[in-house]
Amino acid sequence: MSADVIPLPRRENPSLDPLLSLTASGMNSVNHIILDRMQSDIPLIPTLAGHLISGGGKRMRPMLTLASAALLEYEGDRHHKLAASVEFIHTATLLHDDVVDGSDLRRGKKTANLVFGNPASVLVGDFLFSRSFELMVEDGSLKVLKILSNASAVIAAGEVDQLTAQRQIETSEERYLNIIGAKTAALFAAACRISAVVAERGEAEEQALDAYGRNLGIAFQLVDDAIDYDSSADEMGKGRGDDFREGKMTLPVILAYARGDEAERAFWKDAIAGRRSTDEDLAEAVRLIAKHDCVEATRERARHFVQRAIDAIGCFRQNAARDAMEEAALFAVSRRF
Amino acid sequence: MSADVIPLPRRENPSLDPLLSLTASGMNSVNHIILDRMQSDIPLIPTLAGHLISGGGKRMRPMLTLASAALLEYEGDRHHKLAASVEFIHTATLLHDDVVDGSDLRRGKKTANLVFGNPASVLVGDFLFSRSFELMVEDGSLKVLKILSNASAVIAAGEVDQLTAQRQIETSEERYLNIIGAKTAALFAAACRISAVVAERGEAEEQALDAYGRNLGIAFQLVDDAIDYDSSADEMGKGRGDDFREGKMTLPVILAYARGDEAERAFWKDAIAGRRSTDEDLAEAVRLIAKHDCVEATRERARHFVQRAIDAIGCFRQNAARDAMEEAALFAVSRRF
Repeated sequence: MSADVIPLPRRENPSLDPLLSLTASGMNSVNHIILDRMQSDIPLIPTLAGHLISGGGKRMRPMLTLASAALLEYEGDRHHKLAASVEFIHTATLLHDDVVDGSDLRRGKKTANLVFGNPASVLVGDFLFSRSFELMVEDGSLKVLKILSNASAVIAAGEVDQLTAQRQIETSEERYLNIIGAKTAALFAAACRISAVVAERGEAEEQALDAYGRNLGIAFQLVDDAIDYDSSADEMGKGRGDDFREGKMTLPVILAYARGDEAERAFWKDAIAGRRSTDEDLAEAVRLIAKHDCVEATRERARHFVQRAIDAIGCFRQNAARDAMEEAALFAVSRRF
Repeated sequence: MSADVIPLPRRENPSLDPLLSLTASGMNSVNHIILDRMQSDIPLIPTLAGHLISGGGKRMRPMLTLASAALLEYEGDRHHKLAASVEFIHTATLLHDDVVDGSDLRRGKKTANLVFGNPASVLVGDFLFSRSFELMVEDGSLKVLKILSNASAVIAAGEVDQLTAQRQIETSEERYLNIIGAKTAALFAAACRISAVVAERGEAEEQALDAYGRNLGIAFQLVDDAIDYDSSADEMGKGRGDDFREGKMTLPVILAYARGDEAERAFWKDAIAGRRSTDEDLAEAVRLIAKHDCVEATRERARHFVQRAIDAIGCFRQNAARDAMEEAALFAVSRRF
């Protein structure tokens, strides 16, 4: 397979550090807004929201809003509130996802639903979602409101679609790409795009940033899904094997099923239907996925989208922000956790 | 207690019919928008949403938006889309409430969470919520967006507060009123208020309609909570005794606990804590509530808020809309289902 590897720009050990440095002072403001606006007279709201928000997420989405603004050399601070709004939407969807999936672990910590119960997680998610719209309304841009309300509807529809595809062995790669394009990439795209709106750039620059975010989001999700079956990956973050036990049709499984023989396909049918979910079954799944190079093939797909992300911002002047955004994209595909 | 009864304007058997007639043609448009905008490429979304939306709700909130517009003699049609938006917010909260409460019945039908599962109900709720913001953005009024995003955050906070108060026997009437003011009355208030915004009236008229909706909403919820313990009420709608089994602190219980003797308080402590939840326990709860006239006392509280609702719109010219809104308020407190 190695002859097919897409030659990405060479950088040794790409990391998130340039993006972190670029956005550090802006993220300080964003984090202040996040902490300030998750408050409520109802103590359970900041307690539960804080459990997840202070739980060590990378805050990729608000960082991308800030980096996009820096790419455009935008000088104001409107994007700080909007970046917080984007993170609230993301946090709300994580709270609801963990309820939907019945997850126990997130970022190596017990999930909010496990600690505080499903009802509280559903309702605090609703609160954060409403709060995110309040922040957007305070900013006052109808165009930003349109982008983010549309992204929210697309995310929710994507989550429903994923739920419908769960335990369906016949799910195709095309459908999988549609699902992750909706549930993950739509918010990455919107997070980047809104900076072009705030900076009052034209449609072409909006679309360029949208494309960067969208392709990066797809790559991120592909790599997330690969890591769940990667025997060489670090064991942290979400519970290893969750996707397998939940019967989620992610690309490593779709490829292993397509490339497998009759006996292997029978295994996958049983496993995805929920009839094989022990630790031994998971080990067998990891073995079959390794046998057919499906983790590497999934990373290879991710490289394709990362290249598209990098090319999408090729029209902008090279500056520290563009450097950081390119390296973040390379990091997205090379990360092992 | 009868000496204390608030003398409301006399109308024999107040009904919703005038409100229904007043808003019939407008509701036709609203219902078209609702059906049109709950569509999606993901078939489960319209199926699940339709289960609830076509399940025979009264659609009080969009009717109130329409009636408020008629009260102000507004001639346009912007309020139709906004009324649909309000109903989507309401529908989203119902879907999530039923998950939170683990309810089986709603409006005499199996709940969506029972038929389609909790995960799908959470996600379709999120979808409808996002869609409601998309409708508001299409209308384009930042003021309306502010009112409804704020109402949504207040509703979610109120639901969390209610969850925190659940199984807490010491919950006061004041706290209960705060909870229903948030979880129910905030959306009634917003539903009415936005028509004043659309009709471009001043702050005083906005506030008058807000007060009408808010007080009516409180009265509606009080009567809902009374009916759950009213041995003479029609058995329909939500499952009788749900509040009791869920340990919800509603006003009939708060009053029966306050008015009860030691033995009765011991019963309530056990029941609200979840240690007494059989049909016999429910029968005993209904008996104690009847013994202390707590259903009637709750209705009496509702009469107070209905009177405030009616007085709040006293500043407007008497027309068919004001008649219908007054009678709807009287209906709210007299209804037995």
